[in-house]
Amino acid sequence: MKIGFIGLGNMGAPMAGHLLKAGHEVIVYNRTAEKTQLLIQQGARRAETVAHACDAEIVITMLADDQALESVSYGDKKILETLAKGSTHVSCSTISVALSDRLTGDHRRVGQHFVSAPVFGRPEAAAAAKLVVVAAGDPAAINTCQPIFDTIGQRTFRFGDKPSNANLVKLSGNFLIMSVIESLSEALALVGKGGLDQREYLDFLTSTLFNAPIYKTYGKLAIEREFQHVGFSAPLGLKDVRLALQAAESLRVSLPVADLVRNRFLTLLANGGESLDWSAISQIPARDAGLK
Amino acid sequence: MKIGFIGLGNMGAPMAGHLLKAGHEVIVYNRTAEKTQLLIQQGARRAETVAHACDAEIVITMLADDQALESVSYGDKKILETLAKGSTHVSCSTISVALSDRLTGDHRRVGQHFVSAPVFGRPEAAAAAKLVVVAAGDPAAINTCQPIFDTIGQRTFRFGDKPSNANLVKLSGNFLIMSVIESLSEALALVGKGGLDQREYLDFLTSTLFNAPIYKTYGKLAIEREFQHVGFSAPLGLKDVRLALQAAESLRVSLPVADLVRNRFLTLLANGGESLDWSAISQIPARDAGLK
Amino acid sequence: MKIGFIGLGNMGAPMAGHLLKAGHEVIVYNRTAEKTQLLIQQGARRAETVAHACDAEIVITMLADDQALESVSYGDKKILETLAKGSTHVSCSTISVALSDRLTGDHRRVGQHFVSAPVFGRPEAAAAAKLVVVAAGDPAAINTCQPIFDTIGQRTFRFGDKPSNANLVKLSGNFLIMSVIESLSEALALVGKGGLDQREYLDFLTSTLFNAPIYKTYGKLAIEREFQHVGFSAPLGLKDVRLALQAAESLRVSLPVADLVRNRFLTLLANGGESLDWSAISQIPARDAGLK
Amino acid sequence: MKIGFIGLGNMGAPMAGHLLKAGHEVIVYNRTAEKTQLLIQQGARRAETVAHACDAEIVITMLADDQALESVSYGDKKILETLAKGSTHVSCSTISVALSDRLTGDHRRVGQHFVSAPVFGRPEAAAAAKLVVVAAGDPAAINTCQPIFDTIGQRTFRFGDKPSNANLVKLSGNFLIMSVIESLSEALALVGKGGLDQREYLDFLTSTLFNAPIYKTYGKLAIEREFQHVGFSAPLGLKDVRLALQAAESLRVSLPVADLVRNRFLTLLANGGESLDWSAISQIPARDAGLK
Repeated sequence: MKIGFIGLGNMGAPMAGHLLKAGHEVIVYNRTAEKTQLLIQQGARRAETVAHACDAEIVITMLADDQALESVSYGDKKILETLAKGSTHVSCSTISVALSDRLTGDHRRVGQHFVSAPVFGRPEAAAAAKLVVVAAGDPAAINTCQPIFDTIGQRTFRFGDKPSNANLVKLSGNFLIMSVIESLSEALALVGKGGLDQREYLDFLTSTLFNAPIYKTYGKLAIEREFQHVGFSAPLGLKDVRLALQAAESLRVSLPVADLVRNRFLTLLANGGESLDWSAISQIPARDAGLK
Repeated sequence: MKIGFIGLGNMGAPMAGHLLKAGHEVIVYNRTAEKTQLLIQQGARRAETVAHACDAEIVITMLADDQALESVSYGDKKILETLAKGSTHVSCSTISVALSDRLTGDHRRVGQHFVSAPVFGRPEAAAAAKLVVVAAGDPAAINTCQPIFDTIGQRTFRFGDKPSNANLVKLSGNFLIMSVIESLSEALALVGKGGLDQREYLDFLTSTLFNAPIYKTYGKLAIEREFQHVGFSAPLGLKDVRLALQAAESLRVSLPVADLVRNRFLTLLANGGESLDWSAISQIPARDAGLK
Repeated sequence: MKIGFIGLGNMGAPMAGHLLKAGHEVIVYNRTAEKTQLLIQQGARRAETVAHACDAEIVITMLADDQALESVSYGDKKILETLAKGSTHVSCSTISVALSDRLTGDHRRVGQHFVSAPVFGRPEAAAAAKLVVVAAGDPAAINTCQPIFDTIGQRTFRFGDKPSNANLVKLSGNFLIMSVIESLSEALALVGKGGLDQREYLDFLTSTLFNAPIYKTYGKLAIEREFQHVGFSAPLGLKDVRLALQAAESLRVSLPVADLVRNRFLTLLANGGESLDWSAISQIPARDAGLK
Repeated sequence: MKIGFIGLGNMGAPMAGHLLKAGHEVIVYNRTAEKTQLLIQQGARRAETVAHACDAEIVITMLADDQALESVSYGDKKILETLAKGSTHVSCSTISVALSDRLTGDHRRVGQHFVSAPVFGRPEAAAAAKLVVVAAGDPAAINTCQPIFDTIGQRTFRFGDKPSNANLVKLSGNFLIMSVIESLSEALALVGKGGLDQREYLDFLTSTLFNAPIYKTYGKLAIEREFQHVGFSAPLGLKDVRLALQAAESLRVSLPVADLVRNRFLTLLANGGESLDWSAISQIPARDAGLK
């Protein structure tokens, strides 16, 4: 297939690399062009403009936020204007339910397909082609994309015809991950203040009731405190919990645990944490408890 | 071994049963005597009094709360007064850190051993001898008890010399389970209000990032709503989160997620939920969101 | 003075009426024209368009939200395009800090003045010309507007040169009012469930430590439950707490009491409260406590 | 009247002083006897024991907490054992609803009266005889005590026959004061981070909608930060919010604002605030926001 790929950050670059290796023709575009170099060496073609990347059956976007996706979708010579009728825009970014709904309508009006396919997994998972893909949209369009999903991910889950369903699943999933960080951090502060060994405690948890990757990953991060190694940054964490809360507000649903998490991010960012991994919020409960 | 067993509720009875089957001599005591009958038929001896059950090398208590444990430990002809020097009191109940510390001192003063060994697992796990035992106290005393733990549980974790360490682990572990119920209920309310299928959503979660028994068990309970089938009652859930908060308060640690959970229990109990399973708190977010 | 007045809802209409009575020439505009009729009878001129209302030294806007203010400010023949250089736009609406900052820059660029002057007071206070005006912006421009503020209000407080300062004060002030509703509702649920007379309790509070109009007004509303009489609607309450939280998020400040209030509004709106007064959130703590 | 007075801290001492000045015969008892000296010089008689102070028509207790009141009420030669039949125990301490109910029953059983009469006001108000008294209990017994209340306070509010009603009013009132500290601190952090002058902001608030002593007092304390001057200590603040939460839990009422306040106290006390005034919790929102 001929695939345009827009957005080559620490997630997009390995995803595009796997598509190349799988034999697809990949045209890569990034706002700052240096990030495309490695892929060019691997055989990708460089798109000078968004329009150039849209000269494809499928254009994939993997960008940081709503604003970035809007800037390549709307306006003069951007995706909506340049993608051919019948072609498909696959949005892998973690964006708002509202923007997903808006893109759904706008693509439909101009005869293009829109598939929402956000992914779960940190950069290491993207590098290992082990992402989990959550897809929603027109079933035929998703079927066309399935080989792509199979190339970048280990498994695809479908959530119906409405593309924003996938965004709601992604946002609520990220909310659940953050809930684990929050509650685990509270528990670690408690047992730590009580004088117990946090590593032994985490080992107990993750070899019994909480035997899930998420508890292992984030428990380890919380205890080892290497937040300078950024898999997913704190400001992006704040963005995601905000999007979850906005989607919930539109649906008239309250998420009090998300409120707590959002406040952790605000406290972290107000106190010098802008460049840390999002798991650094785990230190706020420890600090509040007077643990050094 | 000659073992006294006090407290034959839906956890204690199967635990005592396994000890009998393993060949131990078991003397059972329960405040309401009917609960001992099945065990008597299986070969247990009935203790008419607490003192009678204390005529043993080890006396195990498995009771509902602090008050129940205090009532069999303190006072005329109760455990502290009647257990022989050098014998061991193994407390499997989920009790406060404060009572555990108090019993530790009081047993030491009269030359008895005190081991705190709360267990994780619902009644089905007790019936299957699959409990997880968390033990703390004098290592030699725990070594003596290890065959017992091996009989009732699948694995034992030790947390040092101070018995109340085990209680802190138990309370914080229950807090983490409740945090899962809370956050999962919020997420289910969100996607449910958004029109997604909650079962498909749960299946996605539990086959990927949240692939842990706790998410499967409580997600299923939250969706199927069979709260009349009580594995662990709502008032006991309130008790446990209260004990976690009390232990945390003594250590000057705040647990905001525990505050949320505590309020869910209060709302449930204020609205007719006294006799339901503790997982019924999962319906409060749904109700708040206007889901029927 | 020649004054344009845009937005004649239950706040704007009495404000414009007082300006008329004070002898000003007032040109009124409202999206739905019927609302202007009474003022026309009192001597106001009807503006057929926004541009028409901008044929004035000062144009005042009193609208429901950001979107409404944007729709009369930006675009073809709207305020920014039609107001004369040197004239002043006085924004009395409760809008976001972000929109206020944006209007500040945009008005400056075209040589117009922008004064932010949100008001405190329910419709009865507007009718009695007893509003409290919070003004910020260029001091000379505010001086020009002062007679207007004196006509519609009982007192003006100034908060410096940056117009959005006034919006921050307004939003934080509304947040404090909502905090009173929340905490008072919790206290009333507590003493009510305890069997005390809520009226006697409120009388005690408001004749001693909480002797402030806000406690009297909202305590009475919470107890008498006449939420169909809408002074300020629940959806506007949600909007205001959202704007406070957004302003706080931009500044990296967490407002946990605002989170609680926001969730009360979501629960109210999810359960049939769209058309009620915002004080109806006082019934959620009562309902949670099982009070009928 | 012949009055015993037990507990001569920074509240009790001025209260007893006023009773002396009003011409009553006052027998004073304090655990640490030095605190009685000034009163002895003013004409009080020193009680060597609790029993001695109970040789009176009325014995007033003004103590720090439940434990202190229990220690003078229960046991050998304490109040319940030594106060004459028909005499009255007036409890002015801020104690739990549960202890108040227990004392009510125990005094009744031995033919003594029990009046609960907690007071509102900081030490300065006690010194100025400007306390507000909240009384509940047998009306005839309260009538007997009324001259005492008139001497120490500016006004008495009665809340029925059940003594613990007064405690519930006291605890919920203290909760409301703490809610003001919390919400005001959040608002001050917000406007302070936004660059506004906090003093001007507070002046605006307290000369308009929040024109109540409580906002003036605690706003000033929050801004001036002289927390070493202790009117009411942080550990007592934690005690009071805990008692409010316990009373609420018994009634199945949730108080989420109280949870927030409780966590502020825990954070304060975990970080060196044991000896500060309770208003020091106002600095936690400022710290979280990154304000120095």
